Amino acid sequence: MRRFVVALLLAGAGNLLASPQAGPSPALLGFSEDAARIEHQWENKFTAIPQPENLREYMRRLSARPHHLGSPYNKESAEWILARFREWGWDAHIESFDVLFPTPKERLVEMVEPTQFVAKLEEPTVPVDPTSDQHDEQLPTYNAYSVDGDVTAPLVYVNYGVPQDYEQLERLGVSVKGAIVIARYGASWRGIKPKVAAEHGAVGCLIYSDPRGDGYFDGDVFPEGAWRPREGVQRGSVMDMTIHPGDPLTPGAGATQDAKRLELKDVTTLTKIPVLPLAYGDAQPLLAALKGPVAPDSWRGALPITYHLGPGPAKVHLRVKANWDIKPLHDVVARIPGAAYPDEWIVRGNHHDAWVNGAEDPVSAMVAELEEARALGELIKQGWRPRRAIIYCAWDGEEEGLLGSTEWAEAHAEELRRKAVAYINSDGNGRGYLELGGSHTLERFMNGVAKDIVDPEKNIAVWRRLQLKRIADADSAEKREEVRTRADLRLAALGSGSDFTPFLQHLGIASLNLGYDGEDGGGIYHSIYDDFYWYTHFSDTTFVYGRALAQTAGLAVLRLADAELLPFEFSDFAETLQTYSDDLKKLLKTKQDEIRERNRELDEGVFTATADPKRTLLPPPREDVPPFINLAPLENAVENVTRAAKKYSATLEKARQGGTSAADPAAIQRVNALLMESERKLTLPDGLPARPWYKHQIYAPGLYTGYGVKTLPGVREAIEQKKWPEAEREILRVAGVLDAETQLINSAAVELEKALR
Amino acid sequence: MRRFVVALLLAGAGNLLASPQAGPSPALLGFSEDAARIEHQWENKFTAIPQPENLREYMRRLSARPHHLGSPYNKESAEWILARFREWGWDAHIESFDVLFPTPKERLVEMVEPTQFVAKLEEPTVPVDPTSDQHDEQLPTYNAYSVDGDVTAPLVYVNYGVPQDYEQLERLGVSVKGAIVIARYGASWRGIKPKVAAEHGAVGCLIYSDPRGDGYFDGDVFPEGAWRPREGVQRGSVMDMTIHPGDPLTPGAGATQDAKRLELKDVTTLTKIPVLPLAYGDAQPLLAALKGPVAPDSWRGALPITYHLGPGPAKVHLRVKANWDIKPLHDVVARIPGAAYPDEWIVRGNHHDAWVNGAEDPVSAMVAELEEARALGELIKQGWRPRRAIIYCAWDGEEEGLLGSTEWAEAHAEELRRKAVAYINSDGNGRGYLELGGSHTLERFMNGVAKDIVDPEKNIAVWRRLQLKRIADADSAEKREEVRTRADLRLAALGSGSDFTPFLQHLGIASLNLGYDGEDGGGIYHSIYDDFYWYTHFSDTTFVYGRALAQTAGLAVLRLADAELLPFEFSDFAETLQTYSDDLKKLLKTKQDEIRERNRELDEGVFTATADPKRTLLPPPREDVPPFINLAPLENAVENVTRAAKKYSATLEKARQGGTSAADPAAIQRVNALLMESERKLTLPDGLPARPWYKHQIYAPGLYTGYGVKTLPGVREAIEQKKWPEAEREILRVAGVLDAETQLINSAAVELEKALR
Repeated sequence: MRRFVVALLLAGAGNLLASPQAGPSPALLGFSEDAARIEHQWENKFTAIPQPENLREYMRRLSARPHHLGSPYNKESAEWILARFREWGWDAHIESFDVLFPTPKERLVEMVEPTQFVAKLEEPTVPVDPTSDQHDEQLPTYNAYSVDGDVTAPLVYVNYGVPQDYEQLERLGVSVKGAIVIARYGASWRGIKPKVAAEHGAVGCLIYSDPRGDGYFDGDVFPEGAWRPREGVQRGSVMDMTIHPGDPLTPGAGATQDAKRLELKDVTTLTKIPVLPLAYGDAQPLLAALKGPVAPDSWRGALPITYHLGPGPAKVHLRVKANWDIKPLHDVVARIPGAAYPDEWIVRGNHHDAWVNGAEDPVSAMVAELEEARALGELIKQGWRPRRAIIYCAWDGEEEGLLGSTEWAEAHAEELRRKAVAYINSDGNGRGYLELGGSHTLERFMNGVAKDIVDPEKNIAVWRRLQLKRIADADSAEKREEVRTRADLRLAALGSGSDFTPFLQHLGIASLNLGYDGEDGGGIYHSIYDDFYWYTHFSDTTFVYGRALAQTAGLAVLRLADAELLPFEFSDFAETLQTYSDDLKKLLKTKQDEIRERNRELDEGVFTATADPKRTLLPPPREDVPPFINLAPLENAVENVTRAAKKYSATLEKARQGGTSAADPAAIQRVNALLMESERKLTLPDGLPARPWYKHQIYAPGLYTGYGVKTLPGVREAIEQKKWPEAEREILRVAGVLDAETQLINSAAVELEKALR
Repeated sequence: MRRFVVALLLAGAGNLLASPQAGPSPALLGFSEDAARIEHQWENKFTAIPQPENLREYMRRLSARPHHLGSPYNKESAEWILARFREWGWDAHIESFDVLFPTPKERLVEMVEPTQFVAKLEEPTVPVDPTSDQHDEQLPTYNAYSVDGDVTAPLVYVNYGVPQDYEQLERLGVSVKGAIVIARYGASWRGIKPKVAAEHGAVGCLIYSDPRGDGYFDGDVFPEGAWRPREGVQRGSVMDMTIHPGDPLTPGAGATQDAKRLELKDVTTLTKIPVLPLAYGDAQPLLAALKGPVAPDSWRGALPITYHLGPGPAKVHLRVKANWDIKPLHDVVARIPGAAYPDEWIVRGNHHDAWVNGAEDPVSAMVAELEEARALGELIKQGWRPRRAIIYCAWDGEEEGLLGSTEWAEAHAEELRRKAVAYINSDGNGRGYLELGGSHTLERFMNGVAKDIVDPEKNIAVWRRLQLKRIADADSAEKREEVRTRADLRLAALGSGSDFTPFLQHLGIASLNLGYDGEDGGGIYHSIYDDFYWYTHFSDTTFVYGRALAQTAGLAVLRLADAELLPFEFSDFAETLQTYSDDLKKLLKTKQDEIRERNRELDEGVFTATADPKRTLLPPPREDVPPFINLAPLENAVENVTRAAKKYSATLEKARQGGTSAADPAAIQRVNALLMESERKLTLPDGLPARPWYKHQIYAPGLYTGYGVKTLPGVREAIEQKKWPEAEREILRVAGVLDAETQLINSAAVELEKALR
């Protein structure tokens, strides 16, 4: 194996080494010069430890059998993980919760008109793939948290089934009222599809994997290639996580044995209509039997048919019944105590449950977390003592709706709010580029980490590779210039879809979400073919990116745990807020311009003049032009954050020049106490409009995108939904939050200044 | 039948009537008030004459049997058309030429590795379609003017087979040297595909109709729907028309019996490698047998396969042999003498030959021309006498390479250069919007005509409907604003692909190309299914757009033939030139920016850093940044044209206010003589670089686009091909041409001024 030599670079300085080697006496954000020297030594030791062959063996073990929530191998895996943590010197335990988890009792999709066809709803064994035949242990193909139902109705094809698709259907004269819709996977989180379908009066929902989404359109199908075969199905939860994730029976509270539980009828996060997922082999006969208007160009997939919308003549019978059981889930929680600050926690997590064997999702990243744990244990043996406590978690029940992480976060909410410094998540890994997502108060910090990890394929810093990728992908000269000149690469804001959500958006804990991807494609997501055979043939087959992830996330943990001054930084955050505020302004202006233009075209008769009389294409509805709204409170608040951030940065620079070690440790701890609060200040106790569980005022999953983030969500969604008074109210609320943040940053600057005297 | 009432509108005034009715005393460009009144009366009579049922019956007759060049029914049709012209009072005759026309002797496409497959190369009878079984008279599926050849080689998929596709292939590490390429139809004229393939070393070329091009991706296939069925093939010529169209043996001269003919070996417009077209039914097994890199996303069609590039393992045997015969072609030429100016000709043409039955191409527009001829004959009976001569032509051999029109234009070149005022072409018709293409000196005139024709589906002027369509389609607020406020809708510049080419680009005769389309789609182009059954089920089934075309083209003829002052106008032309000149500037700047950026990215290592090591993706080649070139001569020349155009327009306005009738007719004729020359002045005797047949310096078909136009082609193609000294030379040549035009326009203004005194 190639020996790994870490490149230690000046944090934020962009002084990149083309080929990695140990740099001379580098500075590190939050470390005095002496401390940085020691830290670098430990980091060098740390990054040398993770071994690809270990990752491979962990994966072989963890993906050997299906291990969904409540299954025998799920519990065995939790215990195996527990044993590993203990073996590596961690103080570990399993924490269990009891959660609602429906599993299929009956599943039927049949076409009853104009011809008969019964969908198979089964994924066949692939002979070369040794785990694909474990049918007894595999969960059938289904969408968890679909309500039970038995409906027969004409079919309508609704493209991705997002709100704009229904606007288009209306113009095309097609109604889904009383119909079963068939939507293709993609463009939104799957739970949005039945939600929007039900809002438009549909009585059932089928979601299928079009071969244009992740099938033969993209590449050879499994087992010849990585892509979804004809009978491959994407399972998945359709719980309405945009209201709240976690156990539907215990919103806001840990699902402990004695927790107060809602009755099933009072649950708010089940679908309104029955839902099942389909393979394209099962979907094709249904779609081919549709008549009515031909689907718009961009709605057509890669099946060898003409895509029609219906309704009918295809009529479909859909029956879904579940066993509505309470199942135990098993989170593994392991700890290394903090030597100096035991009550400051760096939390790291990845889920261990899968829909089936889950080699890619989640095992490919779970094994990185395990190898980090082994490496940190190794350092402990060598005498390393982190200043802060480190808590490593292996979540259960993520696939069903972030159950394990949410219940744990809810159960320990009060303590976490006091103690958590940051949460670092991962959830799947492959070859390619570092996925950089998270809280912007950690943007500078995370850029520093990314500059110190070497890409295994290109032998340059992963930071540099990502920068070059962003240069390649930039769609304008301006964006390219920004990528080239901005000190830090931007972090993507976090929406949802993985276990950071309860930490970031419910508790206000600064979070990061990490993983490598961009080079492997594939179509095994949530199918029985996401297994060891697939992963070791088509993804990070040598596990060098697994090692890179262990190095990346581990280094972030190490550095956060060891820093004298917590490496939060606010100038990137403030500048990012500025872009979000500008986005809102543009959003409003775009809406005004669009509606004004559309109304003008209605007056001119554009839509009637350009409608082919042989087809239905109704004019869009006339709408009122959105009013101007008062964004000034937000703009002023952002301005204030910006000023405070500058002040803090200037003080930080002074500290860096003076050396933090000159400072009074107790005074530094007063700064740290404030910094730990900086993300909490971005929350409000009563949360977002109509979804109080989501307390963060800067980031939230979109009500109609699901995984996709909405930044400044209160204001943005009010504008999108044309609720103007609500938009103005939300502007005041978020401005209030930012003013509190400004105060905190100012206080931190003052305390830091004091600490330096 | 609904009675047609024409709306006569102020030319260029934009004063549109929402519902058509006879307007009060309207002004007409080129007519005195009195003359306009009389003209309107004749125009009203004229537009009332064309009848849909006649169009239907002409189509039934002309598309009853295959009637390609040299076939029995082709000659019968020419004679039938001749008889109709004579019946309607025209002085008509058939003018024949003898041209090289290869027809298939042997055709073979077979896959010899890794499996055996022999392509059918046949279009089956469709039972409900009564003419689809005329196999004895149908030309087999082939590409005319392919050289003979017999090659066996690995297959490579080259997307559309245009130059950029080969740049991409090079980056993907795929060479076509020694290979047979398979390209899909689309994106360029078909003859470009074998030309570019041969330039890159391919030894054979297959061109297939992907179902994403005009098959099931777009709609139900024939006979259920309008789109190309599995075995439907697009025939077509692959002669290199971008060098010269017409008989390959007699470039530049009429192919009369005693014409001097080249030997076959000296012909420059045959392909370099053998070519055959394929149906997607025949193409799918070949494409499915390819391995190698997966084709880039945008290269993938709608077949249910993963598109690979090859080369191989599919190996293909391609054999093509033709009968290289000389065949007679029969142009029908009919004439109404000019009462006042017998030596000023308004020429109108449409071809009558088809690849097979050709109901849509060309009969749907040929029948409109016939109905115009009947209507004009009717007016003659009622006492109308056009000032100028009117010549109606039905061309033969268009499909093979504009043979009939080119040979006639070449045979009569000298006379046409002296006498032709304008040429008005059509070539196929359907439902929808008026296709406005032509010389910009006629832009204002043609806008005036379009304002006077009522759209049969929407009961508004076709001009207005097109304006609203362009508003709907505009991709920016700026473009929408231009469509709304510019007095005239822009004419598309003409490239090639129909019979206007010899008139416009060889002889310099101002031309228009007219037709309706945009609402019917279909996939029967150049197949046996382009027939009466298809057209009367899926296109302009009530022939109301056939009537609209007869009204539109006929009105243009009538008005040009009757005008006192020829309705040429130069301000639109000058403004259009300005946009072309700006385009060139932008083209150069874009190329400079792109290459500078690409070189920078090469320096940064963007391409190596973002290349997946599991796939081949080579960096693009480093190129020299294009130098700045001196565009000033062109810019000054355009400025001068603009000034002269203003002067002419001002004088014209004075004439309009004074009434042209106050002017001295002999003096007006001096102006007309100049105006007739205005398009001729845009040509140079030695033509464009490397293709002297193309003499027009403003419009030409692109050397690598075929049908697609290149404006200011000498300069533009020199820049595109990075021939910088040639670009500078061409700037001077086109500036010289424009200076001559400026002089002519100035002289016309002076003469017109004189005529008014």
